[in-house]
Amino acid sequence: MPRVAVEVSGSPYEIVVGPDMLRHVGPELRALGMGGRAAIVTHPDLPVVYHAAVHTSLEGAGFQAEMAFVPQGEESKSLAGLETLYHRFAAMRLDRCSTVVALGGGVIGDLAGFAAATYMRGVSLVQVPTTLLAQVDASVGGKTAIDLPVGKNLVGAFYQPRLVVADVDTLQSLPERERRSGLAEVVKYGMIADAGLFAALESDAEAIAAGDLGLLTPLVVRSCEIKADVVRQDPHERGLRAILNYGHTLGHALEAVLGFGVLPHGYAVAVGMSAAARLAVRLGLLDARDARRQDELLRRLGLPTLGLLNTAPGPDAWRSVAAPKTSPLGRPSAAALLEAMLLDKKSMGGHLRFVLARGVGAVEVREVAAADVVAVLEEGTV
Amino acid sequence: MPRVAVEVSGSPYEIVVGPDMLRHVGPELRALGMGGRAAIVTHPDLPVVYHAAVHTSLEGAGFQAEMAFVPQGEESKSLAGLETLYHRFAAMRLDRCSTVVALGGGVIGDLAGFAAATYMRGVSLVQVPTTLLAQVDASVGGKTAIDLPVGKNLVGAFYQPRLVVADVDTLQSLPERERRSGLAEVVKYGMIADAGLFAALESDAEAIAAGDLGLLTPLVVRSCEIKADVVRQDPHERGLRAILNYGHTLGHALEAVLGFGVLPHGYAVAVGMSAAARLAVRLGLLDARDARRQDELLRRLGLPTLGLLNTAPGPDAWRSVAAPKTSPLGRPSAAALLEAMLLDKKSMGGHLRFVLARGVGAVEVREVAAADVVAVLEEGTV
Repeated sequence: MPRVAVEVSGSPYEIVVGPDMLRHVGPELRALGMGGRAAIVTHPDLPVVYHAAVHTSLEGAGFQAEMAFVPQGEESKSLAGLETLYHRFAAMRLDRCSTVVALGGGVIGDLAGFAAATYMRGVSLVQVPTTLLAQVDASVGGKTAIDLPVGKNLVGAFYQPRLVVADVDTLQSLPERERRSGLAEVVKYGMIADAGLFAALESDAEAIAAGDLGLLTPLVVRSCEIKADVVRQDPHERGLRAILNYGHTLGHALEAVLGFGVLPHGYAVAVGMSAAARLAVRLGLLDARDARRQDELLRRLGLPTLGLLNTAPGPDAWRSVAAPKTSPLGRPSAAALLEAMLLDKKSMGGHLRFVLARGVGAVEVREVAAADVVAVLEEGTV
Repeated sequence: MPRVAVEVSGSPYEIVVGPDMLRHVGPELRALGMGGRAAIVTHPDLPVVYHAAVHTSLEGAGFQAEMAFVPQGEESKSLAGLETLYHRFAAMRLDRCSTVVALGGGVIGDLAGFAAATYMRGVSLVQVPTTLLAQVDASVGGKTAIDLPVGKNLVGAFYQPRLVVADVDTLQSLPERERRSGLAEVVKYGMIADAGLFAALESDAEAIAAGDLGLLTPLVVRSCEIKADVVRQDPHERGLRAILNYGHTLGHALEAVLGFGVLPHGYAVAVGMSAAARLAVRLGLLDARDARRQDELLRRLGLPTLGLLNTAPGPDAWRSVAAPKTSPLGRPSAAALLEAMLLDKKSMGGHLRFVLARGVGAVEVREVAAADVVAVLEEGTV
């Protein structure tokens, strides 16, 4: 089974990637000397066989395990969701030697992670991500958070898990839009650090987008390796780690302006990467052919590009990307996106910071003039 | 000006103790290279000259400072109080380079500290304690927390401040019961680590209890030195730091059973130290003369001892210790105290852990049988 070491000083841990791993959560933790009470934080809409596999595995390894359910959706990643978990932990009599197991996607990982980081000033945390996005991104690196009404992830902690268990079999039950959303982050890793990973995506884009597990597994492993390497060098995001935000400056702004949940996170990141590449071309940093190459890969993976922003938000253009039941109110204006970017916690002192590509596999962080950003947002599709 | 270094690995900082220090907060932070936006978290009932001194000092040093008021009282140390602060921080547009200044007692320090630890996953924190209890205990060591309805300090983080500024002049405006409450922690430092400090308290107990600043200042400095030394060795309470909980096992239980706020924290700790000494005598660890010596010092400082528990809670016996406007409902039963101790986050796996004295200036941590604890609680005054 591939194991990726995350060498964070003081609290190193491993990411285990493979099929049929849910049944191994208990033995893996036992091997780390863990035991006692365990709260499995998850949502009720996950396949019940996942709940049962992890619960049985923990009980079999000597834990006293109980489920702690939170409703599916970003709304749970709130102070209210946190309060629910704290009270559940107290009712379960978790103590400082207890463990929180986060079983689910990014919302579960972020919320349960922050609850574990702060309950009794920190209990053990284990991430068991069941979406591609969480396996390659959210569950690795120790970022935990909840949202405030004024901004996503505004409250949180850096808190490393004791172990990450990524069962690739869970990707089979994933809706197509969630798989594609995760693939956007894999494209990101290729762009920021690994031209070979990028080329691997290009070789089999359609089969990967269709969910071929044999192709997906090495992509998960390589993505985790890249993230682990960045996190090792900069666990608290004081410098280098910022490159992981490639595509996220505009991506987050787009999510905020449209309303979180309208566009899947990875779709917003795809649009953000497309815009960042155009911005890099405009600033003379990137060859226009590389920007087109990235857009082409995103399209083959079923992801949107900057062109989406310049499409009238009629039902046809947006139906393929927006969440069911949402009706985008209108094309997001450049002014609104700019305001949202300045509000982001990664902006400092009123400056816009972008991660910009110099080529496939190499990026740098730059302050960018608002005028250049607006020009790119308004220049239309290439 | 006395400066105590807290050599926590990765984030060392200083405690500055002296008169007229509020005016120096800005320059001290400037000297650390800090600047930008600052939120002064405080409560409206503090003397307005304190607010003005810190605000003016920060503005004079180039900060953009704004007040963030929270109501006085333990009720503010809650998820609701935290939410209020987060929204205030967002409205003030704090960013990751901003600073939270906690100006007040333990509630302000704990709440503002936890908010600073978690807002944007951590902004700079400066503690400016204005009570004796906060100066010698709460503001030093990086413990931050809020309460849940089911337990005090159940949610929190270890988060070290950039600087602690203890202005001893603020102790002049302190009500007598709050000063005495702080002195209980000074007695604790003497018992756990420094027979000389204990003897210094004995030399001038009455003048110290009356608030003589010349006598109090070196006690604050020495207390901070002892706590800094313990915290340096064990920042995350994995072992040694537990000795700081001398008197707190029963103390916390007593506060919980009576209802938080009925008995000042230090008074509860005094009763807890008195009980812990009796327990140590019973277990053959401590000479009975040392237990009596500790009780005698507590009495001279105006603090209660174990005898309080065996006093019928009529108005006379309790009026001197309980908060105004509260009427204790009855003598707390040993069973209720035992249950509360087992619920405490420092108990693990159903065992009672006590910090027990071997003499004045030396303690150890032991698991104690419930029967021995109950016997001490019921044996009556010595």
